[in-house]
Amino acid sequence: MKSRPFVFINAAMSADGKISTYERRQTRISGDADRKRVDKLRASADAIMVGIGTVLADDPGLTVRSGVKNPTRIVVDSMARTPVDAEVVTRKGGPTIIAVSKSAPREKVEALREKAEVITVGDRQVSLPELLGELKSRGINRLMVEGGATLNWGLISEGLVDEIYVYIGNIIIGGKDAPTLVDGVGFLDPMKLELLSVEKMDDGILVKWRVL
Amino acid sequence: MKSRPFVFINAAMSADGKISTYERRQTRISGDADRKRVDKLRASADAIMVGIGTVLADDPGLTVRSGVKNPTRIVVDSMARTPVDAEVVTRKGGPTIIAVSKSAPREKVEALREKAEVITVGDRQVSLPELLGELKSRGINRLMVEGGATLNWGLISEGLVDEIYVYIGNIIIGGKDAPTLVDGVGFLDPMKLELLSVEKMDDGILVKWRVL
Repeated sequence: MKSRPFVFINAAMSADGKISTYERRQTRISGDADRKRVDKLRASADAIMVGIGTVLADDPGLTVRSGVKNPTRIVVDSMARTPVDAEVVTRKGGPTIIAVSKSAPREKVEALREKAEVITVGDRQVSLPELLGELKSRGINRLMVEGGATLNWGLISEGLVDEIYVYIGNIIIGGKDAPTLVDGVGFLDPMKLELLSVEKMDDGILVKWRVL
Repeated sequence: MKSRPFVFINAAMSADGKISTYERRQTRISGDADRKRVDKLRASADAIMVGIGTVLADDPGLTVRSGVKNPTRIVVDSMARTPVDAEVVTRKGGPTIIAVSKSAPREKVEALREKAEVITVGDRQVSLPELLGELKSRGINRLMVEGGATLNWGLISEGLVDEIYVYIGNIIIGGKDAPTLVDGVGFLDPMKLELLSVEKMDDGILVKWRVL
């Protein structure tokens, strides 16, 4: 048995694969039906994970509107750059875990420790396999990843993702520097997926893939 | 009445919006059913247009396998960089037009003129509205655009595209420097689309959008 949670990425992208503009400004990509779906999906997860880029760009609270219980919130933040007043630590919700590397400045780590739990895994970067193992041992069996592009690449390139759900909105964002669903270095031999389902939703499409 | 052809983009991209790897190596994204569809689509067009980046990276012949008549082939090539031995000029097929700007080196233009028709439109870059007007006046009413990312952006950002057909293949390519469906500068206010249809095809999805 694999010693990590079931991991799924949920994201919304434009018809040309962008998750925000080149200025990293958040853009309304999906509609109300998709928002409700995402809220339910969050409530079904034991934890929600985001990368530090998403915290700095969007400052999400990562709480569930409809849910009875709020899932644990996890930030992958190698250098402990999460602001102490970020929504993910200040907004009332599930417990917050900041995953940092051993290279994170000590004073930043100490400041965060007063607001949230801090886990140190990896020397210069957060070791994602180690982090997922640690989460599993804490009873997190279902992990939802809400981006961004760099964290998605980190997890996918290490073979740590089971399924990918993408809402494709009815817009073109364009831009060679705009963040896409999966950034990072990129594959030379692309990774294979299996199409699980596709359906119209709001003015766009919801696609579900399984990673092979 | 608008003085340009009906313009549609046809492309295949990965589930994360990439049209090739970061090394610009062509990747098999679609399957046999989609290839047949694209071949028919080409045969239905009066002309097929590509950018110089696509010529240099993929060296496509732009001919129709199944068709009775081969459509006109058009390369948007501001600096006349099309090699004189490129498939698009040497392979037997429809007539070839190379659109260059006034800044293209004269000797390159002269060399190309021996192999193909050369149209000069625009000072430093090919003026796409002017080029489309010229094509319309020559009886080209239906223009198929086969990329790449920069030409797609040029046409879309100038409001010169009517419909976009995207085959989404069952792969993740990843990479912040991999070409996407629409590169260029990118919009701050995204451009709106209307979903025309979505269907499963081969192991992926075919999506058709109308530009609003």
